[in-house]
Order: sequence, then structure tokens, then C-alpha cells
Amino acid sequence: MIPIDIGRIDDVIHGRVRLGIMTYLANTETADFNELKGALNTTQGNLSVHLSKLEEAGYIEIVKSFLGRKPNTRVRLTRPGRKAFANYLKVIAELLDSTSGGE
Amino acid sequence: MIPIDIGRIDDVIHGRVRLGIMTYLANTETADFNELKGALNTTQGNLSVHLSKLEEAGYIEIVKSFLGRKPNTRVRLTRPGRKAFANYLKVIAELLDSTSGGE
Repeated sequence: MIPIDIGRIDDVIHGRVRLGIMTYLANTETADFNELKGALNTTQGNLSVHLSKLEEAGYIEIVKSFLGRKPNTRVRLTRPGRKAFANYLKVIAELLDSTSGGE
Repeated sequence: MIPIDIGRIDDVIHGRVRLGIMTYLANTETADFNELKGALNTTQGNLSVHLSKLEEAGYIEIVKSFLGRKPNTRVRLTRPGRKAFANYLKVIAELLDSTSGGE
């Protein structure tokens, strides 16, 4: 019996939408709300829920401001968020490696 | 804006427990229920729920039998399941690659 330590997978990041957000921000560092909504092809409500989860975990910062009269929401990856994402990638890569012998 | 196609991630496989089951079976081809429960350190109820989901998708087969008087449940990866898992790994690997430049 080979133990598969699924507890090491960070569930805050693992969900598809949150994984998409983190992946996007790992490349761009910051993004505005509409940019993320477009890139992930998701709805406003769905994106809001998942951004809140990542903010609660301290992985991203959400800054609301105005560009002229238009409200603007910017999202930024925090240092702990970057670290958590790097760790997530490591864990998933190890999982991938563990199965490569079976293919 | 770089589109991140999270729709390509197979949600049947992506959940932690189901990913653990598929990873285990990719290595062993078949496993019995108690072996999986031990390897994934999960509960009987939780494991049952997730095995049913994978069975519904046609990714695994569940065979119930008796070893003497003891009921035995064996789980086997199907050909479509192996294909779906290989595809899942490919999609995740591509996602990993897309972020490696950002680190």
C-alpha cells in the first residue's frame, strides 16, 4: 500500500476557479476584476466568492478604488500567497511524478 | 489578458479524494476498499461517496464479492478512466508550465 497524502494539497488553492486565479496572478502579479473575469470566463458572483476565500487566507489583497468615476477592483498576489502557490505546485508535481511510472 | 482555460480541468477527477483514488489506481490498477481507505487516510463514508462518483463517470469499476464469508469490494481503473486521468495530468502539467515563467 502506497500512502497518497492528499492532505498536503492546499484546498484553498485547489478548486478550479481559485487555481485559475492563482495561476493568472502568478504570471501577472496584479489584475483587475474584469480582466480576471474575462481570463477565467466566469461570472461576477462566482469570481467574487472565490476572491473572498483567497483574501481570507491571506493569499491575495483586494484594493477597491475609483478610476475617475468608475469603481475599480484590483487584485494582487501577496507574498504568503506566492509561497502557498509555489508549495501547491510542488505538491502537485510530486503527485504527477508518483504516477508517471504507471503510464 | 492570458486566458486560463479552467474548464479543461476534469472536475470528476480534480477533487482531492478522487484525485487520490485515481493516482493510487494509476499505479496499482486495482485495489480493495480497505487498502484505499488506508492509503488515503479517509473514512468509509467519504470514500464510498467519491468511488460512486468515479463509477458514475465510468472511470472505475466496483466489484463486490465474498472472500469466504467476508464481503470484499474491489475497485479497478477502466480504460476510459485511465484515458481521462492521463488527460487530466496533461492539462495540469500545461497549467504548471504556464506559471513556471512567473517564479
